[in-house]
Amino acid sequence: MDLKMKINAVVADAFNVYPHFANTLPAQRAALMHAIAMALQANETELIHAAAKETHLPPARLKTELNRTILQWNQYADACAAGKWLHISKDLSGPAPILKMNRALGPVVVFGASNFPFAYSTPGGDTATALAAGCPVIVKAHPAHPETSLLCAKLLQTVIEKEGFSPPIFQHVPDEGFETGALLVQHPLTAAVAFTGSFSGGKALYDLAQARPAPIPVFAEMGSVNPVVILPEAQKDAEALSGTLVQSLTASAGQFCTNPGVWFLLQTTHTNHLLAALKKALNKSQSEPMLHEEIAKSFSTKRKEVLASGMVDLLASAEAPGNDLFSIPTISTTSAKKFIANRMLREEIFGPYAVAVLCNNMQELAEALEAMDGQLTGTIQARSADEILVPEILEILERKCGRLVFNGVPTGVTVTEAMHHGGPFPATTDSRFTAVGADAICRFVRPVCYQGWPGHLLPQTLQSFIGT
Amino acid sequence: MDLKMKINAVVADAFNVYPHFANTLPAQRAALMHAIAMALQANETELIHAAAKETHLPPARLKTELNRTILQWNQYADACAAGKWLHISKDLSGPAPILKMNRALGPVVVFGASNFPFAYSTPGGDTATALAAGCPVIVKAHPAHPETSLLCAKLLQTVIEKEGFSPPIFQHVPDEGFETGALLVQHPLTAAVAFTGSFSGGKALYDLAQARPAPIPVFAEMGSVNPVVILPEAQKDAEALSGTLVQSLTASAGQFCTNPGVWFLLQTTHTNHLLAALKKALNKSQSEPMLHEEIAKSFSTKRKEVLASGMVDLLASAEAPGNDLFSIPTISTTSAKKFIANRMLREEIFGPYAVAVLCNNMQELAEALEAMDGQLTGTIQARSADEILVPEILEILERKCGRLVFNGVPTGVTVTEAMHHGGPFPATTDSRFTAVGADAICRFVRPVCYQGWPGHLLPQTLQSFIGT
Repeated sequence: MDLKMKINAVVADAFNVYPHFANTLPAQRAALMHAIAMALQANETELIHAAAKETHLPPARLKTELNRTILQWNQYADACAAGKWLHISKDLSGPAPILKMNRALGPVVVFGASNFPFAYSTPGGDTATALAAGCPVIVKAHPAHPETSLLCAKLLQTVIEKEGFSPPIFQHVPDEGFETGALLVQHPLTAAVAFTGSFSGGKALYDLAQARPAPIPVFAEMGSVNPVVILPEAQKDAEALSGTLVQSLTASAGQFCTNPGVWFLLQTTHTNHLLAALKKALNKSQSEPMLHEEIAKSFSTKRKEVLASGMVDLLASAEAPGNDLFSIPTISTTSAKKFIANRMLREEIFGPYAVAVLCNNMQELAEALEAMDGQLTGTIQARSADEILVPEILEILERKCGRLVFNGVPTGVTVTEAMHHGGPFPATTDSRFTAVGADAICRFVRPVCYQGWPGHLLPQTLQSFIGT
Repeated sequence: MDLKMKINAVVADAFNVYPHFANTLPAQRAALMHAIAMALQANETELIHAAAKETHLPPARLKTELNRTILQWNQYADACAAGKWLHISKDLSGPAPILKMNRALGPVVVFGASNFPFAYSTPGGDTATALAAGCPVIVKAHPAHPETSLLCAKLLQTVIEKEGFSPPIFQHVPDEGFETGALLVQHPLTAAVAFTGSFSGGKALYDLAQARPAPIPVFAEMGSVNPVVILPEAQKDAEALSGTLVQSLTASAGQFCTNPGVWFLLQTTHTNHLLAALKKALNKSQSEPMLHEEIAKSFSTKRKEVLASGMVDLLASAEAPGNDLFSIPTISTTSAKKFIANRMLREEIFGPYAVAVLCNNMQELAEALEAMDGQLTGTIQARSADEILVPEILEILERKCGRLVFNGVPTGVTVTEAMHHGGPFPATTDSRFTAVGADAICRFVRPVCYQGWPGHLLPQTLQSFIGT
């Protein structure tokens, strides 16, 4: 069977089970989701073993990620059952009752991330929230961890059968190159796409989806350099701050989408002391294996290019490793003028690389911030004496970013309803929706309004929530 | 000054006032909106006079529309102040408080409708909800009612100045052809687009917006034929039902986006009686002036084409008027097979034209419904004995439509939070959002998350709602 026929069959199967699955009660889907969480827990050893082999991520890091994944399934299951995401409205004041409720969009295609084989891949947040919404899911396996993906998929499929759901509510498609994803996104019965990865990958899928005869939503979380603004008084905390920043920069070999890649320093007499402390902190950091050789090579190439560009000065770099797979934690410096003039300096280098942008005054800082594209996060480090400067910076960051961190670091995305993991293009293709937290369910629904309907003919879900 | 320079200046002005306007308190914007409602009321006579001249709509119909427009401003103002649309979430359980709130997207370009010079044009729901969200608005005047548009714009501008807001929060751009709208949509500082009109117009703007270096949301409400399914038992109410349906079909010369253009009749021994009653009801209907000659010509051409296609039989037609501006209310019949095989029969003929699709059995009915594109509305006429058939039809209509009417007609869109005026493509370009009701404000916002922020540095709006 050729690829196109295979994809056609997969999407048709998903579409065929969609009406029934969309009409299961949220509490039923929540029970399935809790059962999936338990199965992930029960298979922890095997899962971590498979992922460690394929991703080079240390088992301790993978265990943290798997726990996060389990937390997501449980938390999104509870949110699914609670039904806030249904956004039920009623108006019983007129001659005909008017009720509104969110309904599942249809089959959702999920593209997982290379850097999170569990939490943002096959058994990740996109799969969990799409199932919560009542959408059948088709996961396209990530080529960097196909075995882990397959193992997770089989585990989900086993639970789905055991819990009595139709098998095609979750399907797994092995990667056979770009065409696999393209066919899935272009299929007329596909209703939405979730993607976590590079700008080029996400934008290509977005463009395919928009060029369809009937365009569909694409939730692509792409690149971000996650600016950090360090105000004068905060710079005095040089030792503590540099430790925190370098830790955030180098964690997991810098392979987080919230990795802080651009640091804006409003120059004072303390700035050189902070730079010295950053250098010292970075010199203590270790070269680590990256996810796979392609990512390590890309990091190495882009790092070399920017260091050779004449647009930055090297501040500090870890020892070069004797291995192509390893990262080289690096910090460079540049001026606000150079940062504004050179797009290269504003682009993500996926891995532990950051550039410190030295700004002579608030105007330069504001202009440098304005030069930035949309971001997942923006961070301000400020102490009491700096507070007078915060509103002007906040105003810019609010326009550019999805999440604003005060006196923290952007890495570490709490799974909570109040989280927003998203941001203006090109950080994501749809800044209005989050990929983390229960509101992520809202990506896969649209409202339907029922006017004049007798209660007993309304969808079961609406009947069950109508009195609430 | 050439057009491009003019548009650049307009969008730049809107963008410059955006941060300040977005940070006014919802209660302040609500006060402005109530003042606009009062000004519309106070200028009723002049407004109706101008619109009647340009649109040929009868003054009584325009008065109803203006009242609806005023109701919208007041209702959306109250919703703005109440702040539910801010979707504030908080998580104070961790080491750093996490808060989330919706923020204004930026300058919004509004394209009004030809058929609603008030309620869905310059002073319409798009303008009101964008201002409620804190977005500056740029209205591109509709070429079919430029004087009415300008009059409304001046009225809004007077109120805006009097209430102490920056003038560029609302700007009005005269129509200089397609290029005017294209430049507005393509401008890098434009953040979103709202449109009501034809599929060709809406899709062209959508494609421009998606082809931008940074794509932006487009909320285009386009065509719809609003299927009505008439089940066997309901057909027995031939006289009452035909009166209601023909009234819905011919109201305002059929120029409503929710006009019922396709009627599915599950054939029984009563069907011929219903068809006779429909014929009788239609014969009583009047030819009326349409909005302008282009619309009347397009109606006349498409009507002739379909009647000459051999795919339908003429059931009833009003007397042909002696005037190019006038509509000719018309009902034709066809079979489910022809309906499925000919896309032409499923496409909107803007005006008082409907086709009755005769279905031999439930399977034909289901297949005919499946052949339909996305719709704003779907209606079922059913009596007790028909109820057993409803779930299967509902399942299809839920996938195809935004609003489902039971034993009513689709025309008449109640302005209420529980309303959904939208639907799957090509009814709209974004089925997830409504154009009517307070939830329409949500089109023009995106969430921003504040992590670890001291309360006094949070945006004023968040501070004012935080305790609620």
